[in-house]
Amino acid sequence: MSRPRYVAVVGPDAPAATEADCEHALAVGGLLAERGCVVVCGGLGGVMGAAAEGAAERGGTTVGLLPGTDRDVANPYLTIAIPTGLGQSRNVLVVRAADGVIAVGGSWGTLSELAMARRSGLPVVSIGGWSVHDVAGAPLDLVTANSAAEAVDLLLDTIVSIGR
Amino acid sequence: MSRPRYVAVVGPDAPAATEADCEHALAVGGLLAERGCVVVCGGLGGVMGAAAEGAAERGGTTVGLLPGTDRDVANPYLTIAIPTGLGQSRNVLVVRAADGVIAVGGSWGTLSELAMARRSGLPVVSIGGWSVHDVAGAPLDLVTANSAAEAVDLLLDTIVSIGR
Amino acid sequence: MSRPRYVAVVGPDAPAATEADCEHALAVGGLLAERGCVVVCGGLGGVMGAAAEGAAERGGTTVGLLPGTDRDVANPYLTIAIPTGLGQSRNVLVVRAADGVIAVGGSWGTLSELAMARRSGLPVVSIGGWSVHDVAGAPLDLVTANSAAEAVDLLLDTIVSIGR
Amino acid sequence: MSRPRYVAVVGPDAPAATEADCEHALAVGGLLAERGCVVVCGGLGGVMGAAAEGAAERGGTTVGLLPGTDRDVANPYLTIAIPTGLGQSRNVLVVRAADGVIAVGGSWGTLSELAMARRSGLPVVSIGGWSVHDVAGAPLDLVTANSAAEAVDLLLDTIVSIGR
Repeated sequence: MSRPRYVAVVGPDAPAATEADCEHALAVGGLLAERGCVVVCGGLGGVMGAAAEGAAERGGTTVGLLPGTDRDVANPYLTIAIPTGLGQSRNVLVVRAADGVIAVGGSWGTLSELAMARRSGLPVVSIGGWSVHDVAGAPLDLVTANSAAEAVDLLLDTIVSIGR
Repeated sequence: MSRPRYVAVVGPDAPAATEADCEHALAVGGLLAERGCVVVCGGLGGVMGAAAEGAAERGGTTVGLLPGTDRDVANPYLTIAIPTGLGQSRNVLVVRAADGVIAVGGSWGTLSELAMARRSGLPVVSIGGWSVHDVAGAPLDLVTANSAAEAVDLLLDTIVSIGR
Repeated sequence: MSRPRYVAVVGPDAPAATEADCEHALAVGGLLAERGCVVVCGGLGGVMGAAAEGAAERGGTTVGLLPGTDRDVANPYLTIAIPTGLGQSRNVLVVRAADGVIAVGGSWGTLSELAMARRSGLPVVSIGGWSVHDVAGAPLDLVTANSAAEAVDLLLDTIVSIGR
Repeated sequence: MSRPRYVAVVGPDAPAATEADCEHALAVGGLLAERGCVVVCGGLGGVMGAAAEGAAERGGTTVGLLPGTDRDVANPYLTIAIPTGLGQSRNVLVVRAADGVIAVGGSWGTLSELAMARRSGLPVVSIGGWSVHDVAGAPLDLVTANSAAEAVDLLLDTIVSIGR
């Protein structure tokens, strides 16, 4: 039996996360659990909490890497909650822990994770997130999806195709 | 239902870990799983692998925080394997992730984890490990156990008594 | 006497850094040194090396935070070269060490640092870098400059105005 | 001209540091500066502050790697003060930044740094610090010195002899 794929779901915390972001994250988490993936997130609320909730509802395994040293601030949907004490540096760990990343919604913290993932050659799919344009104004190649199902399909297909 | 306790089992990797170290770690892992604890370790072999194996045999949940970026070097007994890319800095994360630490056997890496745990006020119990003496030559108060059962009892009693 | 301001200059390593990027970084480094700032960078080449070279030519103090554990891969223009062993996680440290950030040129690593700085509320000025658009396609408010002098002026004015 | 050697001086913060610890650290810092070394420390007071003060008095270069995100809590003797935001994980960075370590006085934090240095194969000399005994009760080989001068001589000789 092969090991499960780990997928990080990154996005804004409450209250910055929009209702649409949280609906997408909930659906993404559920679909990832159905596909046997471990859902990795930053352990707090908003997109992180919704993704974990969606996965937990389908019996999935969820891991939260918390910025502080207190486990008790974690959302209640985590199989494993890990306080790192690294502050925002834990964003890098969320990305490192994953075989691919789904970014839901836009925020500077989310963009830092998306950029770090791209820097590391990790597959990334965005839903409702920010876009990035080069110095000439041309949009950079970010894979985007319009629905949770499309995002999960695109990401897992890419993970498989690159042999991660 | 309350959340599970997280216990880090730290000790030398193979081949530095002795046979006795690995037997202790295997038993510690099993007893922690029976008591409903999540076993956290550094994800590799020796004491880390034996503790995870012992926990896995009893259906426990095990987390490995790996020093490198490659998940595939993890021991095969982990529920969750997290590559951190932090090198030996991941030792701090192993300690931070835990409510208490059981140190099995002696090595400089193990001592760094034990010392970091004590620095953070985390309960620590040692089996077959190194001792530390102050500048006047007096041994410092390290809780030691002669068996896996004693170590697990002592640690969990302390965790409960301090309300972690 | 007040302490110096620390300014991180972030941008692509060689060979991804363009000639224009390196010219901008060299000029930025020199101007920051003239203004009494400590120049912080990632310690390698490209934009990092050019910024350190520019500062060193004017007698400035330069700090490089290296991704690996080997000090000897640092560019030769650093007053202080610090191997971190954290891999790309050291990007967060470069940002944390600074009172403000000048981003020169575009790359995913650069964008991760810019985004992390914005996430932390740190002033950022970009020269020749990527732009970011929200989900509706509107460009996000990134302060941009067309020259090294403009970038340094804008950044230091902002740092002073916010009392950092 | 070859690059300077970097020496970390580690030991307890105030008020845990004893008067003797601080006198040793002050003298160690001064001697390291005279020998052209960069003094690296944890940036706070006690042994850290005394070592930086000693080095600064002789015109040496001093680097402090701070646990928090606020540069202004640094001791006033640092050429470069770097907030890391990593909490006690910054202890690993202090060790990584160095070619060798002088440990002055005893504390769990100090022991964690000493152990991490030994784990990494870095030369370490202790003054007035704790000792470590193996499971059979035999003291482990820690190089100790009775004076600042002896500590600096022993450490720099070792650094040179191993070609660091």
